[in-house]
Amino acid sequence: MTSIVIAPDSFKGSLSASEVALAIESGIRRVLPNAEIRRFPMADGGEGTLDAMLAATDGQLQTASMVGDTLVKKSVRFAVLDKTAVIEVAEIIGLPNAQGHVAQRSSYGVGALLRHCMDLGIRKFMVGLGGSSTNDGGAGVLAALGVGLIDADGSPLPPTLGSLERLSSLDFSQLDPRIATCEIMLLADVNNPLCGEKGATAVFGPQKGIEPELVQMYDDWIANFARSADQWAGRPVSLAAGAGAAGGIGYALQLLGATPHRGAEMICRLLQIDAAIKQADWILTGEGRTDTQTLMGKVPFEIAGRAKGFRKPVSLLSGSIPTAEMALVAPHFSGCFSIISEPMPIQTAIAGARTMLANAAEQMARIRFVTVG
Amino acid sequence: MTSIVIAPDSFKGSLSASEVALAIESGIRRVLPNAEIRRFPMADGGEGTLDAMLAATDGQLQTASMVGDTLVKKSVRFAVLDKTAVIEVAEIIGLPNAQGHVAQRSSYGVGALLRHCMDLGIRKFMVGLGGSSTNDGGAGVLAALGVGLIDADGSPLPPTLGSLERLSSLDFSQLDPRIATCEIMLLADVNNPLCGEKGATAVFGPQKGIEPELVQMYDDWIANFARSADQWAGRPVSLAAGAGAAGGIGYALQLLGATPHRGAEMICRLLQIDAAIKQADWILTGEGRTDTQTLMGKVPFEIAGRAKGFRKPVSLLSGSIPTAEMALVAPHFSGCFSIISEPMPIQTAIAGARTMLANAAEQMARIRFVTVG
Repeated sequence: MTSIVIAPDSFKGSLSASEVALAIESGIRRVLPNAEIRRFPMADGGEGTLDAMLAATDGQLQTASMVGDTLVKKSVRFAVLDKTAVIEVAEIIGLPNAQGHVAQRSSYGVGALLRHCMDLGIRKFMVGLGGSSTNDGGAGVLAALGVGLIDADGSPLPPTLGSLERLSSLDFSQLDPRIATCEIMLLADVNNPLCGEKGATAVFGPQKGIEPELVQMYDDWIANFARSADQWAGRPVSLAAGAGAAGGIGYALQLLGATPHRGAEMICRLLQIDAAIKQADWILTGEGRTDTQTLMGKVPFEIAGRAKGFRKPVSLLSGSIPTAEMALVAPHFSGCFSIISEPMPIQTAIAGARTMLANAAEQMARIRFVTVG
Repeated sequence: MTSIVIAPDSFKGSLSASEVALAIESGIRRVLPNAEIRRFPMADGGEGTLDAMLAATDGQLQTASMVGDTLVKKSVRFAVLDKTAVIEVAEIIGLPNAQGHVAQRSSYGVGALLRHCMDLGIRKFMVGLGGSSTNDGGAGVLAALGVGLIDADGSPLPPTLGSLERLSSLDFSQLDPRIATCEIMLLADVNNPLCGEKGATAVFGPQKGIEPELVQMYDDWIANFARSADQWAGRPVSLAAGAGAAGGIGYALQLLGATPHRGAEMICRLLQIDAAIKQADWILTGEGRTDTQTLMGKVPFEIAGRAKGFRKPVSLLSGSIPTAEMALVAPHFSGCFSIISEPMPIQTAIAGARTMLANAAEQMARIRFVTVG
């Protein structure tokens, strides 16, 4: 019996990874009704990370009342799996639900959730960093864990990007001592440092609402904040790969001893996807848009690498593969296909993604497995 | 060695069938550089029919000075293959180069070319009927062969749709007697009768410029013309399948003894494509747009049927497959794929067709033949 693994990322703005996997399965079943199909909705540390874990493990979903990016109370979800808390930053301060101007937003809620979990006795964390709305250098996370942001008059400052202009010093004396006993794994799909032209503000700031002409100013404020913090740590953590993830949350948590990991890789491990790939005749992966960024470690590339390790064929289904990128992407897959079946605007593609995904998966199964039409 | 047959129709408005076949081959060669690939640019009786014949046979290209749809002299091409003249109506009165209003256009040039070929001693014809700009009921063809169009005063009328309003009778006394000794095969992809709601004027008239509110009027004029002609023939030729092809040229020539054939089928026979399909491991076909019309005997459907006869897999590459049509089309192929790789307007698709065709063919070869990406 044909054995197939379906391991796609979400189609952002259109379908969750679970929905993508279901649509692909429905298309394949039109051709191979009796195939053994295993679905692994994937994620890379961003939005959907929690769902991917919950779908594939016996992790327990929990909720807590926490604060969002403008410090307004909200209910947030996290998961506990083998005494490890799985936290998705996008769940707390996600960009699609962002409030106010980015200068007024804070990553405080993320630090507060870590503290809440420590109160529950948890000391191991996986923190998915993608999809955040904040760019506070991680100042909010530090503040929630007890670090004081102090101005020239010795007064405390609110933990926002805007406050960093007046930052004079950091007070680590009240840092929650339990954090030193924690093991924190960071899941990200970016390697950017905290500051500079490849830093969080320059690269990801504009999509969060930072005015291009103010990038340099905000970057300077964060660099000033990081000088104090790096000094406390005794090493230039701000230069570390991934310090620029989630507007600097990657920095704040590495400062406190967290280790960065590639999100897609960690989730593959957690889901024990290798065991399934090893048994499979064919692996399908997918994502909303494919380009050379995909080859920097996004879900399809991670799946392709693992499949290749077992000498298994892996094919890609994407919402969009620009013509100019095809030549670079194609060598990594046994076929890359877009779901788009006729000229159409992107809104039509998003609205029809589920149907077109199923259709495209059906055609891929036909060309691969059906000898006579 | 993998043996592949590439047998596409043209992508109308974008690439000729030869260009499509070359683009597909170039994509496949990226994956299977040593494959044995045979190209059969196809046609269905419309534009490209002559080129398809010339590309695949040792037919001789000839030219003649003939008249176009507004009776202006032009050079037209035809082919002679084994004493059979191959005539493409679109070459003489093609829609892309149409002049004037459809009521003023005439199929006269087609009849004149038949006469020219008879002067050369030719008595066998294949006439490709697709892609015409005229809707004169075939009156022009008849006029060129000696039939008089007479008004109520006994005066001759010009052979156009507009003149049929005043038609009183037809005079067959001067019909070229050689036509009775000819064997004329018509190549078409439509089965429409001459008149009525499925007739030439109602179905194909508007795309040639007939105002929708005048369809009934013109259809009545043609019906009146056909009453006289059917009476001469002694049978209701106007009701025959294919009488409505090429604005009634299908009618005029069937009146004179021509037999209708499915264009794609005849061209497959002429090209002896079965022998190649029999040897092949994989067949690719294609067209600019795929919908349920495709299943009425267009090139991809003809190729699919022949491949199925030899239990060979045949896959489709199309410029456009509307989502709603996929379920009807898919069962006939081992995979139907659009060349469109991201949301885009149709103009971008047409401009980039060659590159996207090669890319899509490459991906199809990868998913079919490459085990590890």
